Amino acid sequence: MESERTNSSTPKGRGVNFSAPRSFFLKFSCKCKETFFPDDPFKPISQEPNGLMKTKKTLQYFVPIFEWLPKYNLQKLRYDVLAGITITSLAVPQGISYANLAGIPPIIGLYSSFVPPFVYAVLGSSHTLAVGTVAACSLLIAETFGEELLKTDPNLYLHLIFTSAFVTGVFQFALGFFRLGMLVDFLSHSTITGFMGGTAIIILLQQLKGVFGIVHFTHKTDVVSVLHSVFSHRDEWKWQSSLAGKKIKPQLFWVSAMGPMVVVLVGCLVAYLVKGTEHGIKTVGPLKKGLNPPSIQYLTFDAKYLPLVLKAGIVTGLIALAEGIAIGRSFAVMKNEQTDGNKEMIAFGLMNIIGSFTSCYLTTGPFSKTAVNYNAGTKTPMSNIVMGFCMMLVLLFLAPVFSYTPLVALAAIIMSAMLGLIDYEEMYHLFKVDKFDFVVCMSAFFGVSFISMDYGLIISVGFSVLRALLYVARPSTCKLGRIPNSVMFRDIEQYPGAEEMLGYVILQMGSPIFFANSTYVRERILRWIRDEPEGVEFLLLDLSGVSSVDMTGMETLLEVRRILVSKGIKMVIINPRFEVLEKMMLSHFVEKIGKEYVFLSIDDAVQACRFNLSTTAKPEP
Amino acid sequence: MESERTNSSTPKGRGVNFSAPRSFFLKFSCKCKETFFPDDPFKPISQEPNGLMKTKKTLQYFVPIFEWLPKYNLQKLRYDVLAGITITSLAVPQGISYANLAGIPPIIGLYSSFVPPFVYAVLGSSHTLAVGTVAACSLLIAETFGEELLKTDPNLYLHLIFTSAFVTGVFQFALGFFRLGMLVDFLSHSTITGFMGGTAIIILLQQLKGVFGIVHFTHKTDVVSVLHSVFSHRDEWKWQSSLAGKKIKPQLFWVSAMGPMVVVLVGCLVAYLVKGTEHGIKTVGPLKKGLNPPSIQYLTFDAKYLPLVLKAGIVTGLIALAEGIAIGRSFAVMKNEQTDGNKEMIAFGLMNIIGSFTSCYLTTGPFSKTAVNYNAGTKTPMSNIVMGFCMMLVLLFLAPVFSYTPLVALAAIIMSAMLGLIDYEEMYHLFKVDKFDFVVCMSAFFGVSFISMDYGLIISVGFSVLRALLYVARPSTCKLGRIPNSVMFRDIEQYPGAEEMLGYVILQMGSPIFFANSTYVRERILRWIRDEPEGVEFLLLDLSGVSSVDMTGMETLLEVRRILVSKGIKMVIINPRFEVLEKMMLSHFVEKIGKEYVFLSIDDAVQACRFNLSTTAKPEP
Repeated sequence: MESERTNSSTPKGRGVNFSAPRSFFLKFSCKCKETFFPDDPFKPISQEPNGLMKTKKTLQYFVPIFEWLPKYNLQKLRYDVLAGITITSLAVPQGISYANLAGIPPIIGLYSSFVPPFVYAVLGSSHTLAVGTVAACSLLIAETFGEELLKTDPNLYLHLIFTSAFVTGVFQFALGFFRLGMLVDFLSHSTITGFMGGTAIIILLQQLKGVFGIVHFTHKTDVVSVLHSVFSHRDEWKWQSSLAGKKIKPQLFWVSAMGPMVVVLVGCLVAYLVKGTEHGIKTVGPLKKGLNPPSIQYLTFDAKYLPLVLKAGIVTGLIALAEGIAIGRSFAVMKNEQTDGNKEMIAFGLMNIIGSFTSCYLTTGPFSKTAVNYNAGTKTPMSNIVMGFCMMLVLLFLAPVFSYTPLVALAAIIMSAMLGLIDYEEMYHLFKVDKFDFVVCMSAFFGVSFISMDYGLIISVGFSVLRALLYVARPSTCKLGRIPNSVMFRDIEQYPGAEEMLGYVILQMGSPIFFANSTYVRERILRWIRDEPEGVEFLLLDLSGVSSVDMTGMETLLEVRRILVSKGIKMVIINPRFEVLEKMMLSHFVEKIGKEYVFLSIDDAVQACRFNLSTTAKPEP
Repeated sequence: MESERTNSSTPKGRGVNFSAPRSFFLKFSCKCKETFFPDDPFKPISQEPNGLMKTKKTLQYFVPIFEWLPKYNLQKLRYDVLAGITITSLAVPQGISYANLAGIPPIIGLYSSFVPPFVYAVLGSSHTLAVGTVAACSLLIAETFGEELLKTDPNLYLHLIFTSAFVTGVFQFALGFFRLGMLVDFLSHSTITGFMGGTAIIILLQQLKGVFGIVHFTHKTDVVSVLHSVFSHRDEWKWQSSLAGKKIKPQLFWVSAMGPMVVVLVGCLVAYLVKGTEHGIKTVGPLKKGLNPPSIQYLTFDAKYLPLVLKAGIVTGLIALAEGIAIGRSFAVMKNEQTDGNKEMIAFGLMNIIGSFTSCYLTTGPFSKTAVNYNAGTKTPMSNIVMGFCMMLVLLFLAPVFSYTPLVALAAIIMSAMLGLIDYEEMYHLFKVDKFDFVVCMSAFFGVSFISMDYGLIISVGFSVLRALLYVARPSTCKLGRIPNSVMFRDIEQYPGAEEMLGYVILQMGSPIFFANSTYVRERILRWIRDEPEGVEFLLLDLSGVSSVDMTGMETLLEVRRILVSKGIKMVIINPRFEVLEKMMLSHFVEKIGKEYVFLSIDDAVQACRFNLSTTAKPEP
């Protein structure tokens, strides 16, 4: 789309470069690099002259702790210790609550905040992310394995959850190792927003269980069946617990770092003093001291449950990645740091693999914890290590204390956490700016809250992919006109001042032209010509926006030309890009239409048309 | 990507047009029109002033026969009659052969060339297409319903095939009615080439059955099981028939219009004279006189078989459409005619619906027949009507003659037809020009011949869609430099002569920027900057190639800017297109980066950078 006042002849230096195409392998390696190594991670390493430094840099690249630990100092430590203690105070109640959501013993939730932080601190590339369990995935796991199994064989249920965590780890590691970060990109921001919102809704509803202390409760997560099971068990409503709930309520909106811990302690105290259990206030129940027992021997790959395990592992793995990476990145941006998606995946992966060996279930970087960590002023992943140590102490000495935690307190904590996840402003913003994004978001939101979490996700991603395909199936074309007293050519719809030229149709093509849109492109070009009131002598196709073209696309362009020639219209190609021109050479496209019909700029073409081509019409080959 | 030598200030007339965005509904209706009515079919109608003409035009649009019949004359008729008779001579043997492939009574094949041609002649928009049954779909149907069913209950088998033809019709009609022609586009040219080739291979192998007169033969279509069942039934090989085969062999390469008919007649004669049946030469068996009996009462929507029926109907429907439309179009191009994909779908759909009511199975526009029709010099769909009449005569009087046709003769015919479908040259061409297209083609080819027809198709389409997604997931970016003694900016890789400017990084973005590629775009831009040996002061993003952008994309651009600002680099936007600029206004993107950082051309931007911006760095909002 470039132009310049010039004499109609285009001197050698300025013409289109018809040099021989690159070899296939050169192109192929380029493509692979662009596809899998867009950030070119090994450049700094390869630039290192001496071998020792090379290995050092490589080590630092793969194990980030070697990069920040040497530069570590006491002053940073102070911040990290503070942050570490703060997030621990969040980790304990959340750990118990979410384990509760997943239907596994609360102690597992505490275990899950002990080992994984250490792993992430060593391998993770984000300096803000705080590791922990997340509500959405906990619920999704429970939904996948179902309450029947939990009722009939709680041990198997637990072991399957360990196994699914292992699967998640392997899956995440593989994604990172094979540089398939792009898969996560297909969980668009809109999808995540909607998914989180929907999840928050259903989790809030789930808490009615805790608030009313209902025993028989559904594991289904859709609004309808949850509400149903709340009101179908009125007989079980414990007024005491909802009273206790009332006691806690005020805390519910005190959304700060220490809030949850205070809620828990107050709750424990209340439950302990009024001997709550006798009055039917449900508490967490026994929590025994001691560190994570090994769980590797429990991993069960029984063919009967394998599909379930794989499903749970992979779906939660993707969600956890999307959430963790998105959150890590958004905080990194605030601190002007860089996070490496693929590196994060490897870190998350190993974190979950090792976790699954040590009685932990799925962990990632939850929003609430990371936000607290950020506000507490963390400087490095050291805060995770500190949290790890604090959890160790809790596990060794304080665990029993929390056995008095009333479920209603946990409910309050979860609810307060969830309320923060429904992002009204964002949804409204989407509605204002991009209706399709809004649809994607809402489909996730309602899909999750009314059908089920995984279907909601699938529907929403389906919409996103559909949109991606529509982008390529219907590339925008626009007609260009000359901006007055200049030689720029612009969309006449966007710049009404632009002047069209009689007998010329100048089209700017969107990219790329290939099988999925070739028919459309053909129809569209012919329509532009049909819509011309006066006769057309030249069709100028500006391909500078066309990033690539395949066989079908090439044939389409030839077909268009054939049709035009039969109407006595000449087709001119303008500024084909590198890759496109190469294909045109290989498929003898250029020979067929003639090199004198390919130009570097619209203005050159217009000049040439005016002086040369209009007389010398090239005969059909 | 536009530029012009100018003074650094950009006068009002030339600046970017920041006028208020269009309303949502305006944009939405535009999108819908582009998506579903790219060819704007009703324009000529709406342009008609008087009401009567309007209705006439409308009628002509929906029922093409009203368009060509009035202009019809004797001289055209002569051609069409000749062509009609010629294709009939092809329709009879092919009809019998393909019915044979589908495992249904041969008479059905003849029926299928009687009713459908009339329907297509009325509704079809192609003047060259000849209607008939096709080998690929016949085989695919047989494969779907399986030999067990055929053995156990041949009547049900037949009725299910009628039903699937009905489903096909409804499906095709719906696609056309809802203007979903784009679905067919996803069966790319490469896929079809590979699919046809693979089908040809397995059909050729299937014919060994006929050549050796084997009774027990597999309905599986993959090379392995076919070869196996050929050699596992050596005991059944009838040397007589393969001798008879030898007699026919020479014909096998005589691929002309009359060839097949001659083969059949010779075959019949031989079989009749030598009393072939007694010597174990298999013949077609009894064909009773009479026109199509109604079959509407046989349509069975039994829940037990519905999935099979739907699968067969929809898959074959898609393939038939893709083949028919592709073939119709390629011949139309030779005659400089236009075919309307959606109109064709409706025609095919009604053709199959009515067909399924009158004892016909799936019909479409087969390649061989259409080619013969074209070469015989057909002028209008009248040739189909002629064929219809000829078939009627055959059905009424000559049917019994063909009952002597030896299967081996049919085998020869099918094989000769199939040999024409393996397009070596095309495959080699694909290999030369576009390796990915070649992979798509081969995956269909080998998938079909070694796994099964539908899987082969699915795999190949999967690759195509994957490619489409890769296009959008990895949009090409390139760095621009100034072409010497000009003010054009071009890819420095493509035009090594182009000069970079110190302190400037000018990037041309591929399109679009959205969730699926935002991460990549971010990484890529930052990498371009990292790769600069000297310091960078300005990043110029040329968006003229970016056809659209979504929320995620917008946020990515803002994120990039934030990172750059922290490095003291200024980001400048150049020539955002209509849709993109509108989104930028709505999301306050422009306000955030400042209108003075948006330019209409690279050169304007460079000028401005040099004189204004370098001093007045805009503070971070």
